[in-house]
Amino acid sequence: MEAITKPTILSGVLELSPEDQRLFEKMLEVIRKHFTRHAYYPLDTTVMEKSEVLLAKGGGETEKQIYRFEKGSNDISLRFDLTVPLARYVAQHFSELEFPFNRYQIGKVYRGERKQKGRYREFYQCDVDIIGHNTLHVLNDAQIPKVMDEIFQELRLPHYAFFINNRVILNAYLEKIGVTDPVETLRILDKLMKIGEEKVKEELLLAGITQAEEVLAIARITGTNTERLDALTCLCDSDRYKQGVKDLQTVYEGMLALDIPEDRIVIDPTITRGLDYYTGTVYETFITDHEEIGSICSGGRYDNLSSHYTKQELPGVGMSIGLTRLFTKLREDGLMEIETDPVADVAIVTFPGTEIHALRLANQLREAGCAVMVQLEKGKIGKKMQTIDKRGIPHVILLGEDEVKNGTATLRDMHTGEQVTKKLDEVIADLV
Amino acid sequence: MEAITKPTILSGVLELSPEDQRLFEKMLEVIRKHFTRHAYYPLDTTVMEKSEVLLAKGGGETEKQIYRFEKGSNDISLRFDLTVPLARYVAQHFSELEFPFNRYQIGKVYRGERKQKGRYREFYQCDVDIIGHNTLHVLNDAQIPKVMDEIFQELRLPHYAFFINNRVILNAYLEKIGVTDPVETLRILDKLMKIGEEKVKEELLLAGITQAEEVLAIARITGTNTERLDALTCLCDSDRYKQGVKDLQTVYEGMLALDIPEDRIVIDPTITRGLDYYTGTVYETFITDHEEIGSICSGGRYDNLSSHYTKQELPGVGMSIGLTRLFTKLREDGLMEIETDPVADVAIVTFPGTEIHALRLANQLREAGCAVMVQLEKGKIGKKMQTIDKRGIPHVILLGEDEVKNGTATLRDMHTGEQVTKKLDEVIADLV
Repeated sequence: MEAITKPTILSGVLELSPEDQRLFEKMLEVIRKHFTRHAYYPLDTTVMEKSEVLLAKGGGETEKQIYRFEKGSNDISLRFDLTVPLARYVAQHFSELEFPFNRYQIGKVYRGERKQKGRYREFYQCDVDIIGHNTLHVLNDAQIPKVMDEIFQELRLPHYAFFINNRVILNAYLEKIGVTDPVETLRILDKLMKIGEEKVKEELLLAGITQAEEVLAIARITGTNTERLDALTCLCDSDRYKQGVKDLQTVYEGMLALDIPEDRIVIDPTITRGLDYYTGTVYETFITDHEEIGSICSGGRYDNLSSHYTKQELPGVGMSIGLTRLFTKLREDGLMEIETDPVADVAIVTFPGTEIHALRLANQLREAGCAVMVQLEKGKIGKKMQTIDKRGIPHVILLGEDEVKNGTATLRDMHTGEQVTKKLDEVIADLV
Repeated sequence: MEAITKPTILSGVLELSPEDQRLFEKMLEVIRKHFTRHAYYPLDTTVMEKSEVLLAKGGGETEKQIYRFEKGSNDISLRFDLTVPLARYVAQHFSELEFPFNRYQIGKVYRGERKQKGRYREFYQCDVDIIGHNTLHVLNDAQIPKVMDEIFQELRLPHYAFFINNRVILNAYLEKIGVTDPVETLRILDKLMKIGEEKVKEELLLAGITQAEEVLAIARITGTNTERLDALTCLCDSDRYKQGVKDLQTVYEGMLALDIPEDRIVIDPTITRGLDYYTGTVYETFITDHEEIGSICSGGRYDNLSSHYTKQELPGVGMSIGLTRLFTKLREDGLMEIETDPVADVAIVTFPGTEIHALRLANQLREAGCAVMVQLEKGKIGKKMQTIDKRGIPHVILLGEDEVKNGTATLRDMHTGEQVTKKLDEVIADLV
């Protein structure tokens, strides 16, 4: 008798049950379909990267979470997102690629985060990005949320909205009103949704930002999207600011042209998406009435994706779905409305001596397009039917000795319990 | 100007070009389709496992290749195959699973192998396994190669054959002829295909295995599969041996019943699949005329999958495609016969002022099922057409100011160069 090792996994990683995994795969299939219809190229970068390359940008927060190790003479890190590897890939293969280069990637990323409910250390991201060479038209920023919108519609997500903004607006505005520490100001403003206006004001004043009222003025803009754009236009007259508002308006109009309904777009001048990285459009996506889930899909425009790896100017825009988190949240909160088909259209139950006939029949049914499971084990018929029922398989074919002798099969409808014995051909015809 | 880090990846890992990745994705799609039609559940275990769990079995060769590291208090290893994680998963979730449990998994595995052409340190495996509880009918061993056969047929692989054997045959035979060191004998016999009969005989004698002639007798069995089975039956009369031959025969008959043609099955009593792990049926798959590629899909039956993790008896059978290696080999040797569709059915080229109209048109076309790319950048029309042509997109819509004014579009066939200006509706109708 050998020693038994307790079968467990690392904490903070997720493994699904077979049925939940089927649901997850269905989501992946929908996502891939729409990315493909929008002509994004798939890309599959390595999970292990050279640490010096992956961490070229440096930066404290992320770096602490990296899974980093040595093997032989290699200093290796597991990727923590799909954007840095994209930047590296595009710089590396610059001369072979056609621009604009539009790619999607679905893959696992790794972050050794502190333990926290709903946070995972290994999780799927689904990214789309469009990378230009030297220039990238601002209307690309409308194409990115459109493909996400198609995906979310087919996944039957509860009502959600894309919150969009342009970072230039806030930056230029803060400059105009004389804020000398825009980074700290934005950091505090970013808490607006969590802590409310009063607290934000307190914190701003505490940080010595005397323009707290003017900062909050931009957050108080309300009304329809058109009203918001109008209000924004009037708020400040620097040229840079005006260009930011104009770009935001163009993206908004592009989204409407792409048939994203008005009620799924919110122009929100307080959206900042962290404090570095993005330089223009920024997006967050919230499920209405479930903002506690956090943003389910976010991203933005960056002036120069690959600046750490190449002197080429490669502006880009992209969004990313945190799919593992989205899946578990929808599942937990009962918001998952899509369903999978049963794992098989039909299960064939064999009896001693009929197994090989069952294989032949299974083959005919599969060639006709059915998903078929063959039950070959000996055992009580009741237990077999129970397993088939638990798996949600709607039909069973019972193939006994008599059936084989007569060239028939018994077809049972698992919902109604009805059972008929018919010629094999007729049974196949019934199922196809 | 910031410092530039040279964008490179670790040696021994593979990243494909966007077009090659599309081909790889097509292979994945075909594989998933057939696994699904055979009612295998998808499974997605974690890439990072606890080292003590992953390495519970111990074993020198593999262990040296493991990517293993610590993070916080965790001793972590990257999975080196999909079978050990399956064993762990099934033991861990034993009470929630229905048996037989049939699952597929497609995922990357990690092996820090010595540098060698055609070997990768990160590569895809595509596995199917059927796991029983206490018993597992031997005809399951015929179902496993069948799903692989369907996949290889749709992938239009050059002629290949499944080489099948049952380990019991060789083991019982060696016992019967009085070989005291079967492990060493099998190790040497395993080289037959590489070094030939003479050398094998020399090595056997050198190792003190005096029954070299009798050992080779089993390797010299030739003829049709039926003739081979007959010859095997006559070779030895121990009960265990006879059971081995009978099981091999059953698997063979099952494969025929499942419509795998005779010429894609080779009963080969020298196939051993390494020296531990497998206990019954073993499979290797070779491309005829390209045996130097090595086995492209292999596996077998193991008596007790999860013995390191549970006292439950869980016999299993499975096969695995080394997809990264298969893909690169087919590509390099010009044996890849499948093709992808173009990345888009149509590209819309815009002119200043028509961009938003192009988005609207793109949306209509996508809703009608077309894959559409929108070209928004300013620039020379010739260069744009070149990029579209390189991408193999068969149609272009030119949307200029005049076209927008007249509600028309100009449709160009990229193969013939023909170009017509028509009403928008007609252009859409032409493409759908």
